[in-house]
Amino acid sequence: MQFKADIHVTLKRTVNDPQGLTIKGGLVQLGFDGVGAVRAGKYIEVWLEARDEAEARSQVDAMCDQLLANPVIEEYRYQLAVSEQSPAEVPGTS
Amino acid sequence: MQFKADIHVTLKRTVNDPQGLTIKGGLVQLGFDGVGAVRAGKYIEVWLEARDEAEARSQVDAMCDQLLANPVIEEYRYQLAVSEQSPAEVPGTS
Repeated sequence: MQFKADIHVTLKRTVNDPQGLTIKGGLVQLGFDGVGAVRAGKYIEVWLEARDEAEARSQVDAMCDQLLANPVIEEYRYQLAVSEQSPAEVPGTS
Repeated sequence: MQFKADIHVTLKRTVNDPQGLTIKGGLVQLGFDGVGAVRAGKYIEVWLEARDEAEARSQVDAMCDQLLANPVIEEYRYQLAVSEQSPAEVPGTS
C-alpha cells in the first residue's frame, strides 16, 4: 500500500528558538505590531510503500528518530494517510 | 483577540526540491527502501493580536506575501484558531 506522511518537526517548547525570534523581528519591522510570538519548524512530506498502516507508522517513527528530528531538542508528530498518488507522479522529486 | 496561525510554506509542486531529494537519499541509505518521494517545507507558528478573524486572516496573508513565503517558487496555507495562550506564555520566544 502507498502512504503519505505529513510530518511536523518542531523545537521542544522549552528550547529557545532563534529562527523564530528573527522572523518575529522581521515581521515587527515590517509593521506587524500584533505579532506576539513566532516558532519555526520543519514540514516534511514522505510518500512510502508499506504492507499496512502499522508498518507505515513504525517506518515513519524510525525515520524521525534516526534522521528527520534531533531527539535532544526537537519533537515530531505526523498524520498518515493512504495515498492515491504514486511517488513517481509527485513533480520535482526525481 | 488572540489568534494562532499554523502556517505551511511549501515549494510549488512544479519546482524541484533538492532538500527533499537529499533527505530521501539519506533515508534510502539508512535502509528505508519503501520511501518513494520526499518534499521539504517550513512550518511556522505565529501568535497574533487582531480585532477579529477577518483582520487576523488579512494580517497572516500579508505576512506570508511579504516575508514568510517567496511567491515566485513557494505557496502557503494556514489554519487560524483563537488562542487561549498568551504569547508571553510561549516558552523560548522572548
